Amino acid sequence: MFRMYDLIEKKKNKEELKEEEIAYIVSGFTRGEILDYQMSAFLMAVYFCGMTKKETFLLTQKMKESGDVLDLSGISGIKVDKHSTGGVGDKTTLVLAPMIASLGVPVAKMSGRGLGHTGGTIDKLEAFPGFMTSLPEEKFISNVNQYKIAVAGQTKNLAPADKKIYALRDATACVNSIPLIASSIMSKKLASGADGICLDVKVGSGAFMKTIDDATLLAKTMVDIGRAADKKMVAVLTNMDEPLGCAVGNTLEVMEAIDSLRGNGPKDFMEVVFALGSEMLMMAEVCQSKEQAIKMLSSTISDGSALETFKTFVEIQGGNRQDVDHMEDLLDISCKKEVISLEEGYVSSIEAEQIGNASMLLGGGRASKEDTIDLSVGVILHKKVGDKVQKNESIATIYGNSRDLVEIAIKKVRDAYTFRKEKTMPNQMVLKIIK
Amino acid sequence: MFRMYDLIEKKKNKEELKEEEIAYIVSGFTRGEILDYQMSAFLMAVYFCGMTKKETFLLTQKMKESGDVLDLSGISGIKVDKHSTGGVGDKTTLVLAPMIASLGVPVAKMSGRGLGHTGGTIDKLEAFPGFMTSLPEEKFISNVNQYKIAVAGQTKNLAPADKKIYALRDATACVNSIPLIASSIMSKKLASGADGICLDVKVGSGAFMKTIDDATLLAKTMVDIGRAADKKMVAVLTNMDEPLGCAVGNTLEVMEAIDSLRGNGPKDFMEVVFALGSEMLMMAEVCQSKEQAIKMLSSTISDGSALETFKTFVEIQGGNRQDVDHMEDLLDISCKKEVISLEEGYVSSIEAEQIGNASMLLGGGRASKEDTIDLSVGVILHKKVGDKVQKNESIATIYGNSRDLVEIAIKKVRDAYTFRKEKTMPNQMVLKIIK
Repeated sequence: MFRMYDLIEKKKNKEELKEEEIAYIVSGFTRGEILDYQMSAFLMAVYFCGMTKKETFLLTQKMKESGDVLDLSGISGIKVDKHSTGGVGDKTTLVLAPMIASLGVPVAKMSGRGLGHTGGTIDKLEAFPGFMTSLPEEKFISNVNQYKIAVAGQTKNLAPADKKIYALRDATACVNSIPLIASSIMSKKLASGADGICLDVKVGSGAFMKTIDDATLLAKTMVDIGRAADKKMVAVLTNMDEPLGCAVGNTLEVMEAIDSLRGNGPKDFMEVVFALGSEMLMMAEVCQSKEQAIKMLSSTISDGSALETFKTFVEIQGGNRQDVDHMEDLLDISCKKEVISLEEGYVSSIEAEQIGNASMLLGGGRASKEDTIDLSVGVILHKKVGDKVQKNESIATIYGNSRDLVEIAIKKVRDAYTFRKEKTMPNQMVLKIIK
Repeated sequence: MFRMYDLIEKKKNKEELKEEEIAYIVSGFTRGEILDYQMSAFLMAVYFCGMTKKETFLLTQKMKESGDVLDLSGISGIKVDKHSTGGVGDKTTLVLAPMIASLGVPVAKMSGRGLGHTGGTIDKLEAFPGFMTSLPEEKFISNVNQYKIAVAGQTKNLAPADKKIYALRDATACVNSIPLIASSIMSKKLASGADGICLDVKVGSGAFMKTIDDATLLAKTMVDIGRAADKKMVAVLTNMDEPLGCAVGNTLEVMEAIDSLRGNGPKDFMEVVFALGSEMLMMAEVCQSKEQAIKMLSSTISDGSALETFKTFVEIQGGNRQDVDHMEDLLDISCKKEVISLEEGYVSSIEAEQIGNASMLLGGGRASKEDTIDLSVGVILHKKVGDKVQKNESIATIYGNSRDLVEIAIKKVRDAYTFRKEKTMPNQMVLKIIK
């Protein structure tokens, strides 16, 4: 038997914890035998002392084993999953999943909800009336088997240790620790049962990782964990200095995703979709090269198969396939206003976090986990980094349900923009690929 | 209003906390508004990031203010207090207090109980049947006024913040942090109301501080806190590599203290008594030089006034003054055995912690705060560092009430001794004086 006191002391002294010790910490805390105040002291010690590669893997594995592990062996083929570390305007899954699925690669994806200034896929899908984000395991698997696609919220019993540990980190300023972030993400991904995991690690002012160095360290840590668990792994570092695409807000982002499936996606957004998609196709072993992958992905848009798969996906999870063609009818907005530029010049930056906060403020995001959200509100950006703007030209449209909040959002969005007299270049979207 | 989350974050980032922020942490935690798991994360961050001189003082002050502060203004003269950071065989207060008091210097002392391998004055005094270690404030003050001496346990409401914080540190491996140790000790000392505080900071294998550097840092931190609170301060670093004196165990130590008051104190022990005593007399401004102080202290032993004061002290706190002359009658022991040396040579070291543990094992100490203790058991060392030992000579006597435990204690005590062929020197007792 172990005493938590000794294990805190050991971590504090930077000694490596053994497998049985980490198992005791995770299971003891999940069962409530290790008290919150001991666990929070331990987590703070981890923040300061870090964890070795081996410790981080073991922590992830024990967290995964704290709950159900999805058995996807009933699905033939190489199942690929994708995870984003969270950004503003990130509707990648909505476009990528049907593209990949329409090429015959099974997509079995567990997604999360939004928190703070970042959005979540599950919230966005609820823009479709009747859409079920919670699926029984058999239904989830049979959908993937039959239609190659299922996207659902994480079940309650997926890595419960992570939920409990995350809640404690969130209350004790212990979130920003690489081994704790990596183990939190990867424990859920490993429990989701896919064979390959493609990580979209966001970098920039609107992301959790502000620098390429930090993002690289996080990406490598997660790739190492996945490899140690015999998963195919790849991490793509992508830009989150400005929002991804133009739409920020749940229904608005679904509309942009559908536009993208029709071939009208914003350039920066599609760059990320193609980068992640080609890695996923290579991971699924349906093609050998990036060039081949991009050709295949492009064809799913030009031949309409990705859009068709998306409609089927909406339908089999309880939504109405006709809604896909008339999303604008689902927008329930009482107040829509333009953000007029007070200056002229080239857009040099758009603070993604500020835009995310504007959308949250309008009611489109959660400040805390219990908040309910207004799916219709949000922001559409008309100008992105590198674009020329005239004085008095509209740079964005605010969609809201409160005149006062819309006015505040206008100010926030305007303040998020920086202009320069000289011509600026669009952001480079794909910063690094780590395999 | 502050959020504890932000204050943890601030400390984590090594920013200096403001007075209002520290006040919020201490009062919020004492009132139960700040939860244990946030406080333990904060304390662990303090362990890693430290505290500035100003923060440490403010923390101490707010902890002091969390409860009652003794008002000793009704006592004329400069009231001096003494505190030991805890050692093995440390019966200094029992000898020093009556010596100082018999010179007319008011001694108003709050003492603690023993924990782990270290003893506590309050436990030792309970060796006298009827002795009251808890005195009402008025009685405490009137005793000092009339007889110049009172020694009592800390009242429940003395620095309650410290009690709560210490309990949490003790459960989360957060004890060994200099600012936390210093603020814990000094909050109680400041609340005890004396004008001058003499700190006995123990250094060595049997002490909490193992090195002179660590002890110096702790001593300086406490002296700085006291000065900032307008107290006269001095810290004496004394040796705790071997037990202090020969007796370890509650009644046994009282017996040694009485012997010392009769002029038969062990050399190492009396060296510490005189070093602390002379600092206290100078602090009380009853003499100018160390030489003068030592003369005065010596006279209290040679003229019997210190012993007489001790007897009066026992009497006024409810004990029987006759017991002082017949302490051996109070020893309730069923098993007494010698520890025979298996080697010959000079004693080069006696692990103080091991001797303390042997006494605890016999029932003389507490593993946890709730344990009751057997006052009669313990160890008498016949050989100290520097002494010559023959093979088969007795090096110590074990006093116990269980044959089995006495056998284990014999082994522990024997193992605590190290011998050398070459002549060894006694330990230097006074290592440093910090004013």
